[in-house]
Amino acid sequence: MDAPLYQPDALRNFAREIFEHFAVPSSDAELAADVLAYSDEHGIDSHGIARLETYYDLLREGRINPDPKLSFIREKGSVATVDGDNGLGLVVGPKCMEIAMDKAIEHGSGWIAVSNTNHYGAAGYYPAMALSRDMIGLSMTNTTKGVAPFNGIEKKLGTNPIAIAFPTSLEPPVMIDMASSTVAYGKVEIAHRENKKVPQGWCIDKYGHTTLLPEQMMNGGALLPLGSDKDGSGHKGYCLATMVDVLSAVLSGANWGPFAIPFAINVQVSASEQVGKGIGHFFGAWDIEGFRDIQSFKASMDDWVREMRNTPSLDPNTPVLIPGDPERIAYQERMKSGIPLNQKVIESLARISRQTGIALSGPN
Amino acid sequence: MDAPLYQPDALRNFAREIFEHFAVPSSDAELAADVLAYSDEHGIDSHGIARLETYYDLLREGRINPDPKLSFIREKGSVATVDGDNGLGLVVGPKCMEIAMDKAIEHGSGWIAVSNTNHYGAAGYYPAMALSRDMIGLSMTNTTKGVAPFNGIEKKLGTNPIAIAFPTSLEPPVMIDMASSTVAYGKVEIAHRENKKVPQGWCIDKYGHTTLLPEQMMNGGALLPLGSDKDGSGHKGYCLATMVDVLSAVLSGANWGPFAIPFAINVQVSASEQVGKGIGHFFGAWDIEGFRDIQSFKASMDDWVREMRNTPSLDPNTPVLIPGDPERIAYQERMKSGIPLNQKVIESLARISRQTGIALSGPN
Repeated sequence: MDAPLYQPDALRNFAREIFEHFAVPSSDAELAADVLAYSDEHGIDSHGIARLETYYDLLREGRINPDPKLSFIREKGSVATVDGDNGLGLVVGPKCMEIAMDKAIEHGSGWIAVSNTNHYGAAGYYPAMALSRDMIGLSMTNTTKGVAPFNGIEKKLGTNPIAIAFPTSLEPPVMIDMASSTVAYGKVEIAHRENKKVPQGWCIDKYGHTTLLPEQMMNGGALLPLGSDKDGSGHKGYCLATMVDVLSAVLSGANWGPFAIPFAINVQVSASEQVGKGIGHFFGAWDIEGFRDIQSFKASMDDWVREMRNTPSLDPNTPVLIPGDPERIAYQERMKSGIPLNQKVIESLARISRQTGIALSGPN
Repeated sequence: MDAPLYQPDALRNFAREIFEHFAVPSSDAELAADVLAYSDEHGIDSHGIARLETYYDLLREGRINPDPKLSFIREKGSVATVDGDNGLGLVVGPKCMEIAMDKAIEHGSGWIAVSNTNHYGAAGYYPAMALSRDMIGLSMTNTTKGVAPFNGIEKKLGTNPIAIAFPTSLEPPVMIDMASSTVAYGKVEIAHRENKKVPQGWCIDKYGHTTLLPEQMMNGGALLPLGSDKDGSGHKGYCLATMVDVLSAVLSGANWGPFAIPFAINVQVSASEQVGKGIGHFFGAWDIEGFRDIQSFKASMDDWVREMRNTPSLDPNTPVLIPGDPERIAYQERMKSGIPLNQKVIESLARISRQTGIALSGPN
């Protein structure tokens, strides 16, 4: 059976009203709903409305501050560390990305490390904000442990994503958003739901052995870093996860590595188990005009995009794409037809709707 | 037969004298020799004295400027673009990294995009420079095409490395230096020399099919991006190579993608085949004190290092390492026993010695 389709605006409004229900100020609620909507509208199903339930639970239990006051811990020219006051990452994130861009206008580049914050949705949302200001934007975040260091058999790092976006002129922008593990947890979950095996190199079981069975990873095992094993240069994915963890969490004074606060209602971490505050993000922006005339840069980017697209491929059904193409294709489709939600997500939204009295319209 | 061992200082002095032979100013020659020595002393055999022959040939043919005058093309606070005046990357690189660090002292961070430059040795040399100044250093460079974009069957990007280093207090620093392809070209060359097959996922032949035979890659094939194929998330390595290419070359106005100038004497590129000037580098530095007290940062880094090292591994012979460990282990060994050179490299140095009259002492 095909998944029921929901109107993008119905989901967006529902999320906004839920956030407002917990006294999140209107403009913040709109921001948070926009970050979730970005994922749903661009095909990143794991990071959109599917996560509303966890944000809802955490807000209801008072574990997230609905009205955070951001403060600077340190600041020096182009860089600063911001305390997110335990707010929603979906609110703290966009505000810190704005600060990074404002710094770039003044200093040529801007860098904000953030501590005392929570999960911020899709990493790609933030660099996308920079495109309309003709900047190169960058974001990273550490996340709940799920990945074993190369050669290790225990989860010590998150899927720690890296996202960066480059503006173009006539061609679509180049937008990168990638976890530093071979795959995100969500891909293994999907295989599990469909009773399928996963490819070699995605994960290990709780003893550290390679496994093709999703449940063996989910039951005490771990994901593998990008590159997977020795032959695939799995040490490189570990290096990327390291870079993200240090820039996001060690630099900001947040919980790093295995101490990153779990994004789950059923796990509570006591202060004594923490090595910092909340989880950490890292945002950056470069003002292209500080390096090169913006029109020449964009024209070169157009050429770059065309050159890559023109690369012959082995199979005409899998042409060479540009980073960002899959999300763009999903966007065009979903804004026309609606956003497919699976049964588990629909049920979670129904529960939220019942408990709050806020109606969700749809499906189509 | 074991490879003959050379004294580190003998190789370092030889390289310096060769550069001076071509009227490279003494202090620049010393800098360039230091960058090459860093590779040899840290076990990065592909990027050290083994490449002297190519630098030598390019200098002899007048294709590289022995005495470049660096100039700012644009500058704005923490960022700038520098024209390398077609100098040795080994000279332009360290000078631009210094500029980035000076900017970080003034503005909190510093970013230098460089065009009109040439190959700069091991990417890891540059962030290592930042450690003694208590900064986080970063470097990237685009390189001669050798890697196919994900799903493509033609070389369009270089092995485009990313290097970043983080200072620590009592533990050794965390030092990342990684190509964005599954492996560097040198690894396939070594397998070829030893008449061995390479693992699945390293390369394709000239028709775009996966091959295990090094000669089929070397004969018109291509390396694959980190992640290799669909199951391994090869699109992520393509994203990383894209990021490096755009920041190093599109942003600086250098030759990007397949237009990057080959590092070889037998290939000459006419101006009409170029889309910019030389190849491109990208250097960055963050002043940690702008984000967090440096002593707290370093103490947290020590904890981070210990936490990762304590991860259990499946095989006690392959414990969890810290990025930078393999290079550190090689360094300790080589500074004691000497630097092993293979026969082909020894012959290339003998030719240079004959042609210049500059003596190379050794092996031990």
